[in-house]
Amino acid sequence: MAQVLPLELIDKCIGSRIWIIMKGDKEIVGTLKGFDDYVNMVLEDVIEYEMTPEGRRATRLDEILLNGNNVAIMVPGGQPPYME
Amino acid sequence: MAQVLPLELIDKCIGSRIWIIMKGDKEIVGTLKGFDDYVNMVLEDVIEYEMTPEGRRATRLDEILLNGNNVAIMVPGGQPPYME
Amino acid sequence: MAQVLPLELIDKCIGSRIWIIMKGDKEIVGTLKGFDDYVNMVLEDVIEYEMTPEGRRATRLDEILLNGNNVAIMVPGGQPPYME
Amino acid sequence: MAQVLPLELIDKCIGSRIWIIMKGDKEIVGTLKGFDDYVNMVLEDVIEYEMTPEGRRATRLDEILLNGNNVAIMVPGGQPPYME
Amino acid sequence: MAQVLPLELIDKCIGSRIWIIMKGDKEIVGTLKGFDDYVNMVLEDVIEYEMTPEGRRATRLDEILLNGNNVAIMVPGGQPPYME
Amino acid sequence: MAQVLPLELIDKCIGSRIWIIMKGDKEIVGTLKGFDDYVNMVLEDVIEYEMTPEGRRATRLDEILLNGNNVAIMVPGGQPPYME
Amino acid sequence: MAQVLPLELIDKCIGSRIWIIMKGDKEIVGTLKGFDDYVNMVLEDVIEYEMTPEGRRATRLDEILLNGNNVAIMVPGGQPPYME
Repeated sequence: MAQVLPLELIDKCIGSRIWIIMKGDKEIVGTLKGFDDYVNMVLEDVIEYEMTPEGRRATRLDEILLNGNNVAIMVPGGQPPYME
Repeated sequence: MAQVLPLELIDKCIGSRIWIIMKGDKEIVGTLKGFDDYVNMVLEDVIEYEMTPEGRRATRLDEILLNGNNVAIMVPGGQPPYME
Repeated sequence: MAQVLPLELIDKCIGSRIWIIMKGDKEIVGTLKGFDDYVNMVLEDVIEYEMTPEGRRATRLDEILLNGNNVAIMVPGGQPPYME
Repeated sequence: MAQVLPLELIDKCIGSRIWIIMKGDKEIVGTLKGFDDYVNMVLEDVIEYEMTPEGRRATRLDEILLNGNNVAIMVPGGQPPYME
Repeated sequence: MAQVLPLELIDKCIGSRIWIIMKGDKEIVGTLKGFDDYVNMVLEDVIEYEMTPEGRRATRLDEILLNGNNVAIMVPGGQPPYME
Repeated sequence: MAQVLPLELIDKCIGSRIWIIMKGDKEIVGTLKGFDDYVNMVLEDVIEYEMTPEGRRATRLDEILLNGNNVAIMVPGGQPPYME
Repeated sequence: MAQVLPLELIDKCIGSRIWIIMKGDKEIVGTLKGFDDYVNMVLEDVIEYEMTPEGRRATRLDEILLNGNNVAIMVPGGQPPYME
């Protein structure tokens, strides 16, 4: 049975939207522009979701570099259920 | 006595259902599509189970890339007892 | 004085029962089928013990892959005192 | 599709302002003067934001060396919404 | 001045009793049978001491493999003051 | 644009005062005598600041070796605002 | 300006007293007998200081091997202010 390797999956996401669930409760949605072997990622048109005492806070960011070592799950083409 | 090596066991799971117990209390069930030497995994038809103050929450995801360094236990062909 | 090297000890356990005490309070008993250099282990006829608010929970699993980096102590041929 | 690699993105920031969100709740804004492969960074005209029981504290620093292994997100040309 | 290198010190302990203080509050006393470069250790005639809500619990184990990355201090020929 | 590399910046600090902010709330001011690739540092005429229930405690030390892996931020020629 | 490299500083301590401040609140004073590249250390005539609910506890140990990865600060020839 043919495998889909992790880095192949990420490579296919270049230019597409991706939902990233971090360790802890931070989540990020953005367009993947690039990544390296450590799965550090360059993302554009980003929304960062974070739980605060006042509820979930959404922050819009044009372009970010995300440290890969805090990523738990990546959902190609996905978005969180609570996203408008 | 013949050994079953860990990566051999995972390789045999390609295309099959697998139950993954993470460090912390998150659990994931899905079809294994591929993995790398760090046991990062590509999974399809995924259900992510997570304990929330309101009880256990199940989230359905089409396809995910799971970071291997948070995995505690993998159960080939298994599923959590609480799964309908 | 002849040494018993750690990997030698594990190798001798292939096919035998082994009691594994994890970091945190999870404990596992199973038959060791194989392992790799990181002491990731393939185990069969497994019972996973875990402390829950309702007391100690035992879960039976046919076959598992256990991540080695969370293992604290391994007891060849051993079993926890609370095991029936 | 052409990729933007993480280190390329940082390289383009040399001489520009950058907003850095650390693991935990510390944030830093400064002009990037240089970095190494571990994304340790030399920054000038720095403001360090930190949450204290008395609220958010801002500390001005001429020049700093920031340890890369605590960085979560980098926002080229960005600044925190609460910055005057 | 002649040095006593760490691995030399452990090597001299082969066949002797050793008291091991782990990170956290677990302590172990046993006869050292062998070790590897990561100071994973094979121990015999082991007593494992652990603090529980009901006080200090002692568990006797014939032979164990101890993961070296949780060891804080090793005391060749030593034993804890509370040991009968 | 010419870069200032992290190790270059530290090298320029040899013989000068430096303020080091550790992960957690410990801070250190001292004269940098030397360092290695892991940014372990030899410091002289050191003051170590630490928060205690009774308030901030300052400890004077002639010469220390500081483990680099706990350093968050280094401020060449800087000193904490609360320093007399 | 001539540097004093970290391992040089430790080398000069062989045979001398040294005060070691660990991550967490454990402190150790002893005579340094040897060390390796990971700054695991062999110490003699050791006093281990630890905070307990009943106050600071001092334990005398003849000879120990100290795991280097928990060391925060080393003070050649130093001793804690609270030491008699």
